Amino acid sequence: MKRKNNVIEFENLPSIISWSSVVGTTEGNGPLGNGFDMVVGDDMCGKETWEEAECFLQKTSIGILLDKSKQSDTDIDGIYAGDLLNQCMGSGFGIRGYNIPFCGIYGACSTSVLSMIQASISVDSGAMKKAISSTSSHFCSAEKQFRFPLEYGGQRPPTAQRTVTGAGSALISFESEKLCPKIKKAIIGKITDKGVADANNMGAAMAPAASRTISDFLNDTNTRPEDYDLILTGDLGKVGTSLLYELMKKEYNIDISAVHNDTGLMMYYLDEQDVHAGGSGCGCCGSILCSKILNELNTGKLNNVLVVATGALLSTVSPFQGESIPGIAHGILLTSGRGQYE
Amino acid sequence: MKRKNNVIEFENLPSIISWSSVVGTTEGNGPLGNGFDMVVGDDMCGKETWEEAECFLQKTSIGILLDKSKQSDTDIDGIYAGDLLNQCMGSGFGIRGYNIPFCGIYGACSTSVLSMIQASISVDSGAMKKAISSTSSHFCSAEKQFRFPLEYGGQRPPTAQRTVTGAGSALISFESEKLCPKIKKAIIGKITDKGVADANNMGAAMAPAASRTISDFLNDTNTRPEDYDLILTGDLGKVGTSLLYELMKKEYNIDISAVHNDTGLMMYYLDEQDVHAGGSGCGCCGSILCSKILNELNTGKLNNVLVVATGALLSTVSPFQGESIPGIAHGILLTSGRGQYE
Repeated sequence: MKRKNNVIEFENLPSIISWSSVVGTTEGNGPLGNGFDMVVGDDMCGKETWEEAECFLQKTSIGILLDKSKQSDTDIDGIYAGDLLNQCMGSGFGIRGYNIPFCGIYGACSTSVLSMIQASISVDSGAMKKAISSTSSHFCSAEKQFRFPLEYGGQRPPTAQRTVTGAGSALISFESEKLCPKIKKAIIGKITDKGVADANNMGAAMAPAASRTISDFLNDTNTRPEDYDLILTGDLGKVGTSLLYELMKKEYNIDISAVHNDTGLMMYYLDEQDVHAGGSGCGCCGSILCSKILNELNTGKLNNVLVVATGALLSTVSPFQGESIPGIAHGILLTSGRGQYE
Repeated sequence: MKRKNNVIEFENLPSIISWSSVVGTTEGNGPLGNGFDMVVGDDMCGKETWEEAECFLQKTSIGILLDKSKQSDTDIDGIYAGDLLNQCMGSGFGIRGYNIPFCGIYGACSTSVLSMIQASISVDSGAMKKAISSTSSHFCSAEKQFRFPLEYGGQRPPTAQRTVTGAGSALISFESEKLCPKIKKAIIGKITDKGVADANNMGAAMAPAASRTISDFLNDTNTRPEDYDLILTGDLGKVGTSLLYELMKKEYNIDISAVHNDTGLMMYYLDEQDVHAGGSGCGCCGSILCSKILNELNTGKLNNVLVVATGALLSTVSPFQGESIPGIAHGILLTSGRGQYE
């Protein structure tokens, strides 16, 4: 691997040889509903608690991934995974049944990309031949943990995002499968805290970190927004996305709006599904990346995509202690295995 | 890097060029008290909450590390860190002030070694030139979160371990400083759950994972216990340690007792300090590894040490949902830069 300032360059271009996604009912009814590997019929997933339901999402997503790629768990050298639950319960308990070395990752909603970066470093370096990255979130377990139990019937303000019920997993391999999507570069973000303290406005808390990571990446790679088919953030939602555009113009004089989308804006029919400012949670970027985005990189419809996942590093107690919300954003450059970018 | 079954072999032998430790008052009064870089005078660390106090431990430990190594935060390419608090608050908020790319790690008490493994992979591969691994725990924030607030005055059973108030950080560098301790091999553990469900008996929950990781490591490296100066687990305490000996003899016919120690047994005067079965928490293995152990590897008093940190992957809610406690153990082989093992 090489490093140029903040950017890691993968020399062997690890291949993403398989990917899978499992989502809840609301997500299944959204505009991307047909693209997921599984839409559960009931957000409890037949379990007795929301936490168990989230574990089921992650477990099932990995199961589908192994099936699709015709691998057994013992073929995999490591799994990098995390989620929003205290002590990463969704991952720890979701992965418990697999015979795979487990590395827990925490980056709040940025975990989807951070897990993929760490898996890529391990695969590109030869430490692992095949590694999985996986992540999940669940609307009900997240509301219960971070805000109010659903039974309380609290009103969510218009700036609030809806935590996606879903999981996404990817299998990254050292061996080059020529036509698969490849991982080319990555950037691990720095914690950025501009003092936003409203736990119902995560987009605003995370936008400064996204802005910093994207501009660092463009600077260090000497590229411009128009060099990408897509710069995809996950998940800033409505409020965070307009803030991102504003910050990038003001602080870095960069306009990314022509090539930008945000997984928080893509997951739902925003006006019809009553989801306020859009989707959020590890499972939002995770499930869209591991369905639509990788599908389109695989067919060559997309050729090079910079995915920047953002995280709000608040804890269950920090807002009550008067703390602001530290933001972070991690980026990964994915290219199609079919085109000029290989 | 090379991989032999479960074991990662570092080809460039990353150097640990500096290390630091900060502990609380009870730890300072223990047998290793004189070896830490800092013993705080008050476990609140001058803060208003236990969580803030824990953040202070980790922040201070990293500050001392940078000072000792004459590095600025901008010289560091990444920090791998985690802790026991919900959403890794000790790390996220402790590291917030540093201008270093941050990768959150979760492995419960195994985080100390897991962070060091991930930092080593990144450094050995060239993804980072210098990386920090860091971890913390705090008796009071852990009791509040996992068991009872201290004010409740709950009785802890004899099998309970005391979460160490402390933090440890290490600076891992690609450039070889000939006499520094080196990182030679690593093993990332698999989740092992034998059905132990008593959150006051973590040692028993983690011993099977430790046993599995140690025997996998010995098998895959074709070595025997007597090939090591020390096999150090962290943190099984009294109960877990005797279980580990028993399991290793029974399941693998290996006796490690002659070369084994456990950081949970080393931290306190067990009988005099009323700490029941010993120390635990990320900060236990973290602070002892980043003081006594690395000091002795540095002087050549120790030459090759297999450190196996164990984690209990329960969450704040999982015991109340009737769940057992999944265990995990990650191992790293450290050698002196002075001797035959270089």
